[in-house]
Amino acid sequence: MPYDATKMADWQIAEEAEKNMPTPDEWRERLGLEKDEVIPYGRICKLDFMKIIERLKDRPNGKYINVTAITPTPLGEGKTTTTIGLVEGLGKRGKNVGCAIRQPSGGPTFNIKGTAAGGGNALAIPMTEFSLGLTGDLNDIMNAHNLAMVALTARMQHERNYDDAELAKRNLRRLNIDPTRVEMGWTIDFCAQALRNIIIGIGGRMDGYMMQSKFQIAVSSELMAILAVANDLKDLRERIGKIIVAYDMKGNPVTTSDLEVAGAMTAFMRNTINPTLISTVEYQPVLVHAGPFANIAIGQSSIIADRIGLKMFDYHVTESGFAADIGFEKFWNVKCRMSGLVPNVSVIVATIRALKMHGGGPKVVPGRPIPEEYTRENLPLLEKGIENLVHHIGIVKKAGINPVVCINSFYTDTPEEIKLVRRLVEQAGARCAVSEHWLKGGEGALELADAVIDACNDPVDFKFLYPLEMPLRQRVEVIAKEVYGADGVVWTPEAEAKAKAIEENPAYRDFATMMVKTHLSLSHNPDAKGVPKGWVLPVRDVLIFAGAKFLCPMTGTISLMPGTSSDPAFRRIDVDVNTGKVIGLF
Amino acid sequence: MPYDATKMADWQIAEEAEKNMPTPDEWRERLGLEKDEVIPYGRICKLDFMKIIERLKDRPNGKYINVTAITPTPLGEGKTTTTIGLVEGLGKRGKNVGCAIRQPSGGPTFNIKGTAAGGGNALAIPMTEFSLGLTGDLNDIMNAHNLAMVALTARMQHERNYDDAELAKRNLRRLNIDPTRVEMGWTIDFCAQALRNIIIGIGGRMDGYMMQSKFQIAVSSELMAILAVANDLKDLRERIGKIIVAYDMKGNPVTTSDLEVAGAMTAFMRNTINPTLISTVEYQPVLVHAGPFANIAIGQSSIIADRIGLKMFDYHVTESGFAADIGFEKFWNVKCRMSGLVPNVSVIVATIRALKMHGGGPKVVPGRPIPEEYTRENLPLLEKGIENLVHHIGIVKKAGINPVVCINSFYTDTPEEIKLVRRLVEQAGARCAVSEHWLKGGEGALELADAVIDACNDPVDFKFLYPLEMPLRQRVEVIAKEVYGADGVVWTPEAEAKAKAIEENPAYRDFATMMVKTHLSLSHNPDAKGVPKGWVLPVRDVLIFAGAKFLCPMTGTISLMPGTSSDPAFRRIDVDVNTGKVIGLF
Repeated sequence: MPYDATKMADWQIAEEAEKNMPTPDEWRERLGLEKDEVIPYGRICKLDFMKIIERLKDRPNGKYINVTAITPTPLGEGKTTTTIGLVEGLGKRGKNVGCAIRQPSGGPTFNIKGTAAGGGNALAIPMTEFSLGLTGDLNDIMNAHNLAMVALTARMQHERNYDDAELAKRNLRRLNIDPTRVEMGWTIDFCAQALRNIIIGIGGRMDGYMMQSKFQIAVSSELMAILAVANDLKDLRERIGKIIVAYDMKGNPVTTSDLEVAGAMTAFMRNTINPTLISTVEYQPVLVHAGPFANIAIGQSSIIADRIGLKMFDYHVTESGFAADIGFEKFWNVKCRMSGLVPNVSVIVATIRALKMHGGGPKVVPGRPIPEEYTRENLPLLEKGIENLVHHIGIVKKAGINPVVCINSFYTDTPEEIKLVRRLVEQAGARCAVSEHWLKGGEGALELADAVIDACNDPVDFKFLYPLEMPLRQRVEVIAKEVYGADGVVWTPEAEAKAKAIEENPAYRDFATMMVKTHLSLSHNPDAKGVPKGWVLPVRDVLIFAGAKFLCPMTGTISLMPGTSSDPAFRRIDVDVNTGKVIGLF
Repeated sequence: MPYDATKMADWQIAEEAEKNMPTPDEWRERLGLEKDEVIPYGRICKLDFMKIIERLKDRPNGKYINVTAITPTPLGEGKTTTTIGLVEGLGKRGKNVGCAIRQPSGGPTFNIKGTAAGGGNALAIPMTEFSLGLTGDLNDIMNAHNLAMVALTARMQHERNYDDAELAKRNLRRLNIDPTRVEMGWTIDFCAQALRNIIIGIGGRMDGYMMQSKFQIAVSSELMAILAVANDLKDLRERIGKIIVAYDMKGNPVTTSDLEVAGAMTAFMRNTINPTLISTVEYQPVLVHAGPFANIAIGQSSIIADRIGLKMFDYHVTESGFAADIGFEKFWNVKCRMSGLVPNVSVIVATIRALKMHGGGPKVVPGRPIPEEYTRENLPLLEKGIENLVHHIGIVKKAGINPVVCINSFYTDTPEEIKLVRRLVEQAGARCAVSEHWLKGGEGALELADAVIDACNDPVDFKFLYPLEMPLRQRVEVIAKEVYGADGVVWTPEAEAKAKAIEENPAYRDFATMMVKTHLSLSHNPDAKGVPKGWVLPVRDVLIFAGAKFLCPMTGTISLMPGTSSDPAFRRIDVDVNTGKVIGLF
């Protein structure tokens, strides 16, 4: 310890570290849990949320630390790695610490992004289980989601084939579903571009109902969005029953409850409310729960995981997806509002590489060699690019909590570059720490850990950006100006009409605003780096997720089904048939 | 005990019985297993096959008891219930007993058939876990299967979009897949008739490859067929790599290995080789492993489950799907040949109801009230129908093992009817026992248990129906005449040409013959009841499953995707949000 991350692949580090990983029984003792609160699944386990939260309800919460980032390059700047590294650093300081991260999707794991388990000496283990579905939550979501589509399409077939009298014999009323207004698609947890646009129901009278349809990746399911914000099983059941599957010929919503399938869907999802417990390579606890998209959902681990983590740990670290303008804004105004929890600190992860890109460095393209500007000292590019970081510091400060900037260190960073970032960050009124967790694990993250511990002692004046009473269009305007730095918002006529109708409908009064915007820029244009000036945010549509209770103003396209590349990761994954171990994950 | 099965639904009996169900730790002690041989998953567990089979390799096998049935009504005559009941009966006699059954599919569970967990006091528990995916094997199979389709369709897109030089940069050679000869479909574990025939890849250059495609139910996947016959992880990996996904433009097979996806598929399936251990309501061990279709696969639990069961139990009961002409024939000539295991006894389950149907009783239709002939004494119908049972006795005797007929008792059966069956069964040279396990559990199955114990002491002269050297067409003729009672076989020209090519190809020399025929008649015509005479078996095609190593002569249509009915079970399934318990399963 630490492992030589310059020579070992992540799965090889994981394999070594897993040899001494705590068993479910050992976790139970270490975390002071009761026998039936730990539910083993092979060498990992789930924690019984309802039992633990009830038993610990009077215990004060630990410190609540969010990890977010500057606007990243397409390669990502290491939020998960920093989350794990920070936990390891706090562990080295003797703190009772843990974190919550998202469950990865099979899509990226088998395509090009890898498993999102962190990396190097800041890695979550066991990596095989983490990468291949953990205890099955994603499968449960996928099955529950697809069961709704089975119910819908079978119902459409039977309503076409039977008259009202035949339907009445089965105690069914005609729903009159509009085949051109089916909102929901099917799910699969891979990047399957061939299933993005499909025609189903080809054949005859008994082969469903012919219409256009689509598949989306399982993590983009509304069920996943719901799991991330549900407070308990009762809340989960209620929200599942409100999902709008389609509209009828008169334009009324047809829900999972109308299809009489919401109970069975919940039956599939009954175990998903319990977070899974895994480990860092330095053996601190890592909660994994939910893995929602960061555009149409909150893009971070669940409220349930944070509630339980804050009761069990003195320092609970939680990661929010995408950059601070997206991930932190949702953490702040949606997740914390829904949970009632108050954060102490937000760590903003930055890399010298991404800052140089914001200063005007050449385009960074996944799969291609990184241009020289990024591997050699270049203070002018860096200084210019720091404006993006300073903007994100400002966003966090607007929430009334303490920002701590973490420079996620690369071996090509020079002392002068580091010094420059430090100076400008401190000028902007934030703490700054360099962290080498990838190379050195917790020992490399001590400076970060100390900065976070220190920041946790500062007073917090947490406040939301807007009150929930504020009408939708005004909310969007506040977010666009105050968070993104836009001059204003422009709505298409269709989007504006939809927004007006939403504002007037009391059913949507407690719905959250879930912005859909690229994370590759503060603006809606992914090519606009740094801090774009003199632009307005275009809103083209507003999606409504009635189960999750989200209103999603759309400022760009979203694909709910990524594509598998020409050189996907599955080519290199295999099983050692003598040991049963999976090799080649990264 | 027993529970009042006339008043309690199966899920209610299960809920009561689950209160005292052995924990994984208790099972370990009871079965004398080592600590790391039992892998807990919540309140159920998996058994580490490789470790146990290695440790017990020198222990003599227990008695090997197969459960099959006469030609059933469409309602089924209770093979699983009898399997569980027999285990309970042998348990009451103080025997060290266990069994192996198939994992049910989500399709029937959420449609009309229910969970296939047995019923009444002959029920497998915990019913919720059993009905909703156990430890995830079916999801693992579904994901592994769909990953192959992701690999195929992405490859077809990239081969269309890139020239050879671009492909070479990624170390890919052009596979030239014929879009009209894609053999494999996608899987989902529901009855989703709307996905039977679909068009995929609609959109543009980055949206896959436009072609016809299909979904099949997960249990019909070749991966499930493979899991049921694989001997170990190494065998599983090798077979997975030989699956034919499509053919190229020259007619050569394109396999999962060609797509470089077989390793990643095996990674998904790494845990599936370990059988799951659950319980009867009287707390005997029940192994659940694999759930392959009974037409294109063996339709019964796995070789792995039987190998491990025979080492752990003195009496190991295993169920084979469908009637003896299908299920037992495959058990006998395929499963036992592949495993090298020798059975002692085959229990043939019969009901008075089904026998009357074979004697000319009116049609039995699921979901409609049962005609009066079946609920009132009718000796002439019964006597005539017993010929079907006598034929099945003859099939079992051809294998050189002992048949025991079990009359699965209904409360409408009369003493005279029972007496008649007993007399004619004994005349046919088989033991006969009446069993009331549904009503009374093990106490009700003592007569059956005693008959089986007794039969296990008889000498066995086990012999296959045909040697593996026999050419395919001759094998089919032997099966048709000796097992089904046909006068001969007639091949379509296409099927005959295919059969000839197969016979001449040394690659298929060790492939099993896996007949595809309805189980609702001894013939290929489901309406021909009793023992049809004067008919020939038509073979229309021969399917080749290169991973499973099956040749499937097709004597009828097979649907690999059932449909969801107009009154499906999911309407009545829900979760009690206070306790987390699933209600409404049956």
